[in-house]
Amino acid sequence: MRVVVLNTGTELLLGDVINTHLAFIAQQILALGLRVSEQRTVPDGDAIQNALRDLFPRADILFVTGGLGATSDDLTIELTAACLELELREESEVREAIRKRLSARGVQMPESIWRQALVPAGGEVLPNKSGTAPGIYLPANINRRIASPHMFILPGPPRELQPMFHEFVMPILQRVASASGDVIVRRFRVARMGESVIEEKIGGELAGIGRLEIGYCARPAEVDVRVVGSPKAVARASEIIRAKLGCAIFSSNEEQLAEVIVRLLAERGETLALAESCTGGLLAHKITNVPGASQAFRGAFVTYSNEEKICALSVSPEALRQSGAVSERVAVEMTSGARERTGATHAIATTGIAGPGGGTTEKPVGTVFVAIASLNGETSCEKLFFPGERETFKELVAQHAFDLLRLRL
Amino acid sequence: MRVVVLNTGTELLLGDVINTHLAFIAQQILALGLRVSEQRTVPDGDAIQNALRDLFPRADILFVTGGLGATSDDLTIELTAACLELELREESEVREAIRKRLSARGVQMPESIWRQALVPAGGEVLPNKSGTAPGIYLPANINRRIASPHMFILPGPPRELQPMFHEFVMPILQRVASASGDVIVRRFRVARMGESVIEEKIGGELAGIGRLEIGYCARPAEVDVRVVGSPKAVARASEIIRAKLGCAIFSSNEEQLAEVIVRLLAERGETLALAESCTGGLLAHKITNVPGASQAFRGAFVTYSNEEKICALSVSPEALRQSGAVSERVAVEMTSGARERTGATHAIATTGIAGPGGGTTEKPVGTVFVAIASLNGETSCEKLFFPGERETFKELVAQHAFDLLRLRL
Repeated sequence: MRVVVLNTGTELLLGDVINTHLAFIAQQILALGLRVSEQRTVPDGDAIQNALRDLFPRADILFVTGGLGATSDDLTIELTAACLELELREESEVREAIRKRLSARGVQMPESIWRQALVPAGGEVLPNKSGTAPGIYLPANINRRIASPHMFILPGPPRELQPMFHEFVMPILQRVASASGDVIVRRFRVARMGESVIEEKIGGELAGIGRLEIGYCARPAEVDVRVVGSPKAVARASEIIRAKLGCAIFSSNEEQLAEVIVRLLAERGETLALAESCTGGLLAHKITNVPGASQAFRGAFVTYSNEEKICALSVSPEALRQSGAVSERVAVEMTSGARERTGATHAIATTGIAGPGGGTTEKPVGTVFVAIASLNGETSCEKLFFPGERETFKELVAQHAFDLLRLRL
Repeated sequence: MRVVVLNTGTELLLGDVINTHLAFIAQQILALGLRVSEQRTVPDGDAIQNALRDLFPRADILFVTGGLGATSDDLTIELTAACLELELREESEVREAIRKRLSARGVQMPESIWRQALVPAGGEVLPNKSGTAPGIYLPANINRRIASPHMFILPGPPRELQPMFHEFVMPILQRVASASGDVIVRRFRVARMGESVIEEKIGGELAGIGRLEIGYCARPAEVDVRVVGSPKAVARASEIIRAKLGCAIFSSNEEQLAEVIVRLLAERGETLALAESCTGGLLAHKITNVPGASQAFRGAFVTYSNEEKICALSVSPEALRQSGAVSERVAVEMTSGARERTGATHAIATTGIAGPGGGTTEKPVGTVFVAIASLNGETSCEKLFFPGERETFKELVAQHAFDLLRLRL
């Protein structure tokens, strides 16, 4: 079945919002053996109608996101109803759900809010447990005079769309999608190795497997190798990839590096403390995004200044004076401080120059030391160099730090 | 001029990667008075060629991203050259730049890497300072027999595309884009107020201004109000918006809330410390994403466990025992501890239940206390409730905490 995603919203085309819907929907429907064949973004207004007419013959299932709110730029429902020549009717249950939700929170209810209770005749309401505007499902060819795909009209905010998708869209999809199920996808995540090097190691042998699609996706300090094909072809490919890449693979089941770290620590009954200077809390943020992180995570000290390094982590003033804050000696002392203060099994410390300011000839912007110390006395420190933009720098340091710890676990 | 963005990459349609290019490009070209009228995503392979043929007549400027790497699924250059019937030539300067970059880093150079030096005849190379594959600019109608827009073919990884765009794409765009410049955009960012309420306050009066486009974009605990129109219309709209929304507006110049906080603190010569439990480092991460944060940021303590709250922040065991870790009393003690340990002017503390586990009837998942304490003795604590998914919960708490501090500054 051909699945198409149409994202509506001037804010997407002005760059005010990053579109996360495509990635989310794609990941969800993969479980049903469905793949998105095409995606488009159009602004609010008449362009929606043109895109719908253009996409109806190109889709068996069409997801439309955005433009369901109560403000005057929210026109998706009206325009869809117009395209399909369906009447709009107010659904009293939707009205009641909106009233209940807003009055419980003591929120004002301007008259415009009730526009969100309008539903094209014959449409099925998809309740919105995280907001006011419901989603709508329109079965294929709902108006017999107009050929149309199965349509799911979904709210723009991800925090509303995502739970609605899990609870209400997936069951309908399961019913309508005649999923073939004979194609599976497997991803291997590899840290700290370039994509050309990876392809050189595995590409030749994989090419020998018939009807296998191979993809490489580079992220900061990570490459995802993706194989798509029959279960047999994917199994054969997986063997080759595991044999050739070995422990450089940190995950073959969609786990993020931080999830792997938390799982490995929890399995071993061990704990982690963080002493972050240049990563400024990103390592802690990534670790605490993992549900259940509290089992393995003891705490973090974000110490930007020398005083904080001395005070919170007992770094010696001599080390700071003699070697400078960005040095192996200080990184190692930061790990000792973090372990002593928290009693954690392992500590990671980062200290570097994220930029844009603060670089010197000797230690240019991008210089960073990552130290790891463990209860068993093992301590190591790597000097790395990631010149570039501040947020990418933080990402690269975080990936490297986590991967170094992973290899120790 | 009609600007279209074509993103290529099976990884985008499989949901392995979130497409950030559209938002980035849109924001950049707005400075030239250009807006994206349409965006599409297609998989690697022949779909690229079909999309190019479909979009050539719909665009004056066409940005194509992705598929420039050295692996076998990278076909964008070949397919574009085929569409435009242009020969591919190896550029020796590109080859040399690749060789230099990789040998400096001691990276292996498999034979496939040199595919990245192939350029369609007549194309202009856009150097890649953050990776190996260069971008390419093809002027409009480069092959006189085939009508085509100005094309910019850009690498997939954002950390490569973005610096290339700033340095090499923008100057060409300035030359080719006959920017009208008579339409400007202004955004007002409002914290902690719903979009319907905002529209009710400002929508009526704004509707009285001719030829003004108004948009509302809801994010976690934030609504961006966008007005697009002539400088005069936008100025009139801005007056109304400021008068009606007052100090709920935290930014009218694209600043993020964390940037506003860092700027306000720096202006006043004041400093901030963070004591994070349920936000797990996100506040620190957001603050340290702001260049120059070190001026105003003293440090953060990420204390997930009771022991850490006692040890790192001197929270009293009695408070934890009597009121529980998720309580006003503990939140306030956390701020005191953070201020005492760092000497910061202000401290923010967060303690709550991010979920999915850990909720009780009395304190369900989503319960959170945010406390702020300042040198002048002013201490406040708010109890908030954000049921929902873990990462959104962290975002909502962070926005609220920063906005509460902003109103105090």
